[in-house]
Amino acid sequence: KRARDWGIHIGVLPTGQWNAITDVPGVKVGQSTLIKGDNIRTGVTAIIPHEGNIFQQKVPAGIFVGNGFGKLAGTTQVMELGNLETPVVLTNTLNVATAMEAVIEYTLQQKGNEKVQSVNAVVGETNDSWLNDIRNHPVQKTDVRQALQNAQSGPVAEGNVGAGTGTLCFGFKGGIGTASRKLPPNLGGYTVGVLVQTNFGGVLQIDGAPVGKELGIFEFNDELKNRVDGSCMMVVATNAPLDSRNLQRLAKRAFMGLAKTGGIASNGSGDYVIAFSTADSVRIPYESSTPVRLVPALQNDYMSPLFMAAIEATEEAIINSLFAAKTMTGKDGHTMEALPVDKVMEILKKYGRVK
Amino acid sequence: KRARDWGIHIGVLPTGQWNAITDVPGVKVGQSTLIKGDNIRTGVTAIIPHEGNIFQQKVPAGIFVGNGFGKLAGTTQVMELGNLETPVVLTNTLNVATAMEAVIEYTLQQKGNEKVQSVNAVVGETNDSWLNDIRNHPVQKTDVRQALQNAQSGPVAEGNVGAGTGTLCFGFKGGIGTASRKLPPNLGGYTVGVLVQTNFGGVLQIDGAPVGKELGIFEFNDELKNRVDGSCMMVVATNAPLDSRNLQRLAKRAFMGLAKTGGIASNGSGDYVIAFSTADSVRIPYESSTPVRLVPALQNDYMSPLFMAAIEATEEAIINSLFAAKTMTGKDGHTMEALPVDKVMEILKKYGRVK
Amino acid sequence: KRARDWGIHIGVLPTGQWNAITDVPGVKVGQSTLIKGDNIRTGVTAIIPHEGNIFQQKVPAGIFVGNGFGKLAGTTQVMELGNLETPVVLTNTLNVATAMEAVIEYTLQQKGNEKVQSVNAVVGETNDSWLNDIRNHPVQKTDVRQALQNAQSGPVAEGNVGAGTGTLCFGFKGGIGTASRKLPPNLGGYTVGVLVQTNFGGVLQIDGAPVGKELGIFEFNDELKNRVDGSCMMVVATNAPLDSRNLQRLAKRAFMGLAKTGGIASNGSGDYVIAFSTADSVRIPYESSTPVRLVPALQNDYMSPLFMAAIEATEEAIINSLFAAKTMTGKDGHTMEALPVDKVMEILKKYGRVK
Amino acid sequence: KRARDWGIHIGVLPTGQWNAITDVPGVKVGQSTLIKGDNIRTGVTAIIPHEGNIFQQKVPAGIFVGNGFGKLAGTTQVMELGNLETPVVLTNTLNVATAMEAVIEYTLQQKGNEKVQSVNAVVGETNDSWLNDIRNHPVQKTDVRQALQNAQSGPVAEGNVGAGTGTLCFGFKGGIGTASRKLPPNLGGYTVGVLVQTNFGGVLQIDGAPVGKELGIFEFNDELKNRVDGSCMMVVATNAPLDSRNLQRLAKRAFMGLAKTGGIASNGSGDYVIAFSTADSVRIPYESSTPVRLVPALQNDYMSPLFMAAIEATEEAIINSLFAAKTMTGKDGHTMEALPVDKVMEILKKYGRVK
Repeated sequence: KRARDWGIHIGVLPTGQWNAITDVPGVKVGQSTLIKGDNIRTGVTAIIPHEGNIFQQKVPAGIFVGNGFGKLAGTTQVMELGNLETPVVLTNTLNVATAMEAVIEYTLQQKGNEKVQSVNAVVGETNDSWLNDIRNHPVQKTDVRQALQNAQSGPVAEGNVGAGTGTLCFGFKGGIGTASRKLPPNLGGYTVGVLVQTNFGGVLQIDGAPVGKELGIFEFNDELKNRVDGSCMMVVATNAPLDSRNLQRLAKRAFMGLAKTGGIASNGSGDYVIAFSTADSVRIPYESSTPVRLVPALQNDYMSPLFMAAIEATEEAIINSLFAAKTMTGKDGHTMEALPVDKVMEILKKYGRVK
Repeated sequence: KRARDWGIHIGVLPTGQWNAITDVPGVKVGQSTLIKGDNIRTGVTAIIPHEGNIFQQKVPAGIFVGNGFGKLAGTTQVMELGNLETPVVLTNTLNVATAMEAVIEYTLQQKGNEKVQSVNAVVGETNDSWLNDIRNHPVQKTDVRQALQNAQSGPVAEGNVGAGTGTLCFGFKGGIGTASRKLPPNLGGYTVGVLVQTNFGGVLQIDGAPVGKELGIFEFNDELKNRVDGSCMMVVATNAPLDSRNLQRLAKRAFMGLAKTGGIASNGSGDYVIAFSTADSVRIPYESSTPVRLVPALQNDYMSPLFMAAIEATEEAIINSLFAAKTMTGKDGHTMEALPVDKVMEILKKYGRVK
Repeated sequence: KRARDWGIHIGVLPTGQWNAITDVPGVKVGQSTLIKGDNIRTGVTAIIPHEGNIFQQKVPAGIFVGNGFGKLAGTTQVMELGNLETPVVLTNTLNVATAMEAVIEYTLQQKGNEKVQSVNAVVGETNDSWLNDIRNHPVQKTDVRQALQNAQSGPVAEGNVGAGTGTLCFGFKGGIGTASRKLPPNLGGYTVGVLVQTNFGGVLQIDGAPVGKELGIFEFNDELKNRVDGSCMMVVATNAPLDSRNLQRLAKRAFMGLAKTGGIASNGSGDYVIAFSTADSVRIPYESSTPVRLVPALQNDYMSPLFMAAIEATEEAIINSLFAAKTMTGKDGHTMEALPVDKVMEILKKYGRVK
Repeated sequence: KRARDWGIHIGVLPTGQWNAITDVPGVKVGQSTLIKGDNIRTGVTAIIPHEGNIFQQKVPAGIFVGNGFGKLAGTTQVMELGNLETPVVLTNTLNVATAMEAVIEYTLQQKGNEKVQSVNAVVGETNDSWLNDIRNHPVQKTDVRQALQNAQSGPVAEGNVGAGTGTLCFGFKGGIGTASRKLPPNLGGYTVGVLVQTNFGGVLQIDGAPVGKELGIFEFNDELKNRVDGSCMMVVATNAPLDSRNLQRLAKRAFMGLAKTGGIASNGSGDYVIAFSTADSVRIPYESSTPVRLVPALQNDYMSPLFMAAIEATEEAIINSLFAAKTMTGKDGHTMEALPVDKVMEILKKYGRVK
C-alpha cells in the first residue's frame, strides 16, 4: 500500500493517473534488483524520457545540486548545452562507471547512432554500503541493460527495488519512490512526475506530522549515531514545454520537497535533481541543418504552479519510498527495519493527518 | 506573543537565550519603521555582524540564491572574495539604491576608513508595494542611518517593523521574524541565528500543520488570485568558525527552512540567504602585510548539526514573523489581515501541535 | 585615430559599419563626462538595447563574472529570469547606487510603466579613484539621465569619456572602447558589438605584440607597484536570436578577448560581461496573457562563429580604448599618461603587426 | 625540442626547473600510450598530487568549466567539498567510465583504504575520434593502472603520448603539453605547474604571432571545415597554500591562457580546468577527530601573481603540446600533420618573436 492508500494526502494538487513519474506521457521506468547471497543488496533504476532515440532527439534538461557529495555523471554537459541525450540511470556509488559504460554502449548500438562518437551518460547514485557489499562491484553492465530493456510505462515498483534495493532513509529502510501531480487546466494542465532514490537522513515528517521525533529516531539523537548520512537522487519529468533555464528552476523545487520530509541535506549527502521536459515540440535534434529553430517555451510568469507540483510530488515520492520498503538484512548481518507502519499510522492519527 | 509562547516548538534543537539572531555574540539589529499618512508602509532593518569596523575586519560570508527575482546588492563580490564588509541592510525593492548610498556613506565615515575607495554594500529587499507606495521613494538615507545607529543586541522587534512594515506572507500580514538554535556541546556548542523579512506565498504550514489548507487561503486557491508573489530575505549568523564555502552551504539550508513553512519560491519571489560567521578568529583584515594567515575552519564532517540548526531557525523565524505581524491598512486602502491566531491555534490543536 | 586607423587588424572577421556596439541594430550609446576642478574625473556611459520601452519589451540576457571584485547591480535577476529590463549603465564604484536610482526613475517615468512596482537596474562600474575623488560623490542622477537622453546610434566616443573618463589600463590611461564584428552570411550574418570600460592591468599585448614588456610597464614589474588593480566592464550586444543560456556563453567569450590583451583578472578586478540579444523576435513582453510563446533560438551548433566574434570585438574594443584615451591629470595631482602611440607603433612594426 | 628550445619565451615570469607540472613538489605524471593497428590512437595520462595516499590526505581543489561540452567526472563533489581525493586521470571521451573504474579500484586497494566505501574519481577527456576508433573501447583498466604506476616526477613526455596520442589542435596534431612558472621570492616564491591535453580549435597564436592566419589554417576558414571542434583539459598544480575558493579562481585563469593561444572555446569544446594545492599544510585528512583545524591560507590580496603564473604556464603548455606532437595517421587512414615547425619558425621570425 502506498501513502495515499493509507489515507495520506500530501499537498493540494491532484495526482496523475498512476501517481508516478510515468504519468508524464512517454516516460518509462525500468529496474534491475540485485539480491544475492548475504551481501549483495543493490540494483539499477532507469528512467527513459521518451520512446524514440534519445540521442537523436534530445530533451531539454536542467540540474540542481542540493548537496554535491555525490557522483552524478554528466552534470556539466547538461548544464552547458541544456539538454539530456541518454536515459537517466541510478545505481550505487561505486558502480556509476559500470552504468555509464552500459549507457554508452546502449546509445552507440541504437539504430541511427552508428556514427556517434560522444555520449554524455547521466548516471546518479546513492551509497548503499551499509546493506550492500559495494566494494565487490556487484552491478554488471547486463544489469543496467536489463533495466533499460524492461522499462515500461504505467505503475512503478517502489521500495526495495532497483537502485533502492539497499538504501536507508531517516533511520529506516529507504528505496525507490514516485509520485505525480497534474495541474488543473486553468493552471496549464501539465503533469509533473518525480522518481526518487532515498538514502538520506534528518528528522522524518510525514505530511507534516513529526514521525521521527515521536519514534525517537532522528539525526543527532542518541539512537541513531551517524547511521544515516546518505543521499537522495531526484528525477523530475514534465510535459510542459520548458527550456533548460526553467527546468533548472523546476529542479530546485524538488529539493524543497525533500526539505518538507525533514531531510537536512547533511554534509555527506549527495542530493541532486535532474529535470527534463518530454514535450515533443521542444526536442533538440542531434544534427540539424536549420540554424534557428522556433521553439515553444512556457513563460516565466506561468512557472509557479509547476514549482508547487514538483515540491508536492517530491515530498510524496519520498514518503512512498518509505511505505513501500520492507525490512532488509544484508552485508555483515546488518538489518534495517522498514518504517513501522502501524506505529506511524497511530502517530498520523494523533496528529490529525489520517482518520 | 511569539510562536513558542503559544506552545509551538519547531524542531528538535534548543534555542539561544533570546531565540533571535542576536544570540550570536556580537550581532546587533536595528530598525526604522516608516508609517506615514495613508500610503507609506515600509522601513529598514539592519543586521550588524560585530561591534568593530566591519570594513576593516571583514567577516567570511556566503550567499545562496533560492530564486533570483530580486535585487540583492553586493552578491558577486561576496561570492568572489568570500567576505562581507558592511552591515546587511534590508528594505523595499525600489529603495535598495538609497540604502546602498547610506551604507556606503556610513562606511566611508567610520573612523579608520578615511582612505577607503571601494565599498561593497549588501542590501536586500522584498516588494511591499501592495501596502506601500513604493514608487514614491519613501525611504531616505537618514532612515537607513537611523537603523544602523539604533542597532542593539538582545530581543529583536518582529512583525510590522523595519523592512517588514509593509510585507505580506501566505496571504496574511508578514514582516520581520527571528529565531536561533544553540547546538549542544557534543555537537560543537555553536549558535545559529536567523532573521527573515517575509513577503512570500505558498501553502502555509505551521510546525507541519496544514494551516493554509484549513483556512482555505493558499496560492492558486480561488481565494487568493496571485495576491502573494513576493520574496523572502534570510540572514544567517553563526559563531562557528566557517569559511565562505561552508557558509554558502549553510545559507542553502535556510532555503530548506523556508520550504518547511510551505513556501514555494514562486517565479516572482526573490529568495536569498546571506550567511556569515562572527567568530573573531576568522575575520579578514582589510589590509594585511601577512600573505598567509592561519585560520581555524570547522571541517566539512562537522557541518551537519549547523545545517539542521539553520533549517529549524529559519522555519521558526518565518512563523514568528507571522505571529508578530498585525493587520495593516495602507496604500489605496488595501488591508492585509494578520494571521488569525485564534483560528490558527484551533488548527494547531486539531493537528496535535499544541495542547 | 582608432587602432584600425593605425593599421592594426585584430582577428580574422570583418567589422560592422562603425566598428562599434551601435552596429547592432537598435543599440544606442549615451555618455556624460564629468571633468570638474582638479579632482573630479568620472562619468556615465549608458547602453540602450533597443528604441522601445525596455521594461515592457525585455531582451534576453546573460552575465558572466570573470572576477567578482565589483558591484554590478542586477546580476541575480538577469541570471534567474534570463532577461534585461533596463539600459545598462556604467559609472564609478561609489556611484552605482546613484545610477540605479536614476535608472529606476527613468523606467518608472516611461510611458506605459505607470503601474510598475519593481525595476532591476543593471549598473556596472570600475574604480577610477586614482584620478577621481570618488569619495566626493561626483555623479548625480541628472548626469545619468543625461547619458540616457543623449544616447544615439552611429559612432561612439572612446577614451576619456563617460564612465571611462578617469580609468587606467595596463599602466596607461584607459577609458571607453568599442568594436564590432559582422559574420559573413554563411556563418549566419549576425553582428556582435562590444563596449568596454577599461580599468585593469596585466602585461599589455596589442594584436599579439608584447607592448607592455617592451615598454617595461606591466604588473609586478618594479615600475608599476600595484598601481593598476582595476576592473573591466564589458557589454556585448548581438542581433542573433539567442536565449539566455547561449548569451551567458557568449558573455564568457568576451572574457577571453580580455585575456588576449594581456589582462590577468587580478584579485582586485571586477571583470563582468553582460550580453543581450536585440532581435525583435526574442523580446519578452512584461505582461503576457499567452503562457507559451514560440521563440526562435539559434541552435548550440551554430554558436561558435559568434563566440569568435565576441572574442575579437572585445580584444579590439579594449585596444581602442587605449588608443583613444589621452593623458589625464586629476585627483591629488596624479597624472596618468596616455599610451605612447609613437613608441607603440614602433613596437608594432618591430613585431610585424603594422607596416 | 620544446617551444623554449626554439627560442620562444612566453610571458614575463621564470619557469621552474623542468618547466613542467612536476616542478610542483610531489606531483608525478604517468602515461600509457595506445597505438595499435591502424585505428587505435589514444591513451591515458595521470597526474598524482602527492606521494602519499590521496584519499586519506585529500588536497584542496577547485574546478572551472570553460565550456562544458565534456564529461569530466567528479566535478560536483570537488566543488561542494573543496577537495580532490584521487589522482586526476585524462583519457578519451568514451573511456571515462573505464578510467573511473580503474581509479576507484586503485583507491580501494591502497593500503589504509580497506574500509572506504565511496570514491570520487576525477577523470577528464577530450575526443580523439578523428584518429582513434573511439567506439571500439580501446582503453582498458590495465592501461590506466599502468599510467598510475609509472608516474614519476621530473621531465614529462609531451605530444603524441598518453591521453594526447590522438588529439588535434588548431588544425594540427595536438597532444600533451606542460609548463611551469616559479614566482620570485618577493611575490611568494610559489610554483604553478600546468599540464594540458590539447584537442581544440580557433586561430592559432604563438607568443602573440598570428601563426594560424599566416598558414591559412584556422576555424571557419575554408581550409578547415569544422574539423577541429574539440576540447582542452587543463590541470593546474601549485604549492601555494590555497583554499578551494582561491583554487577555483586560479583555475579560471588557465582558461585565459587558452584564450591567448587563439582558442575560442567553440560550442563543441569541453574546456575544463582543475586546480589543486599540494602544500602539506592544507591537506584534508579523510577522518579527523578534530572538528576545527588551523589551516594556512594565502590571502586574496596575494593571489594576482599566481593568476599571472597560471595564465603564462597554460599558454606555454598548449604551445609545447603542438611543438612536441608528430604527424599521426590513424583511423580510416586519416592523417593529421604536425605543426610545420620550419614554417612556424619563419613566421615567428617575421613577427619578431625569435631571432
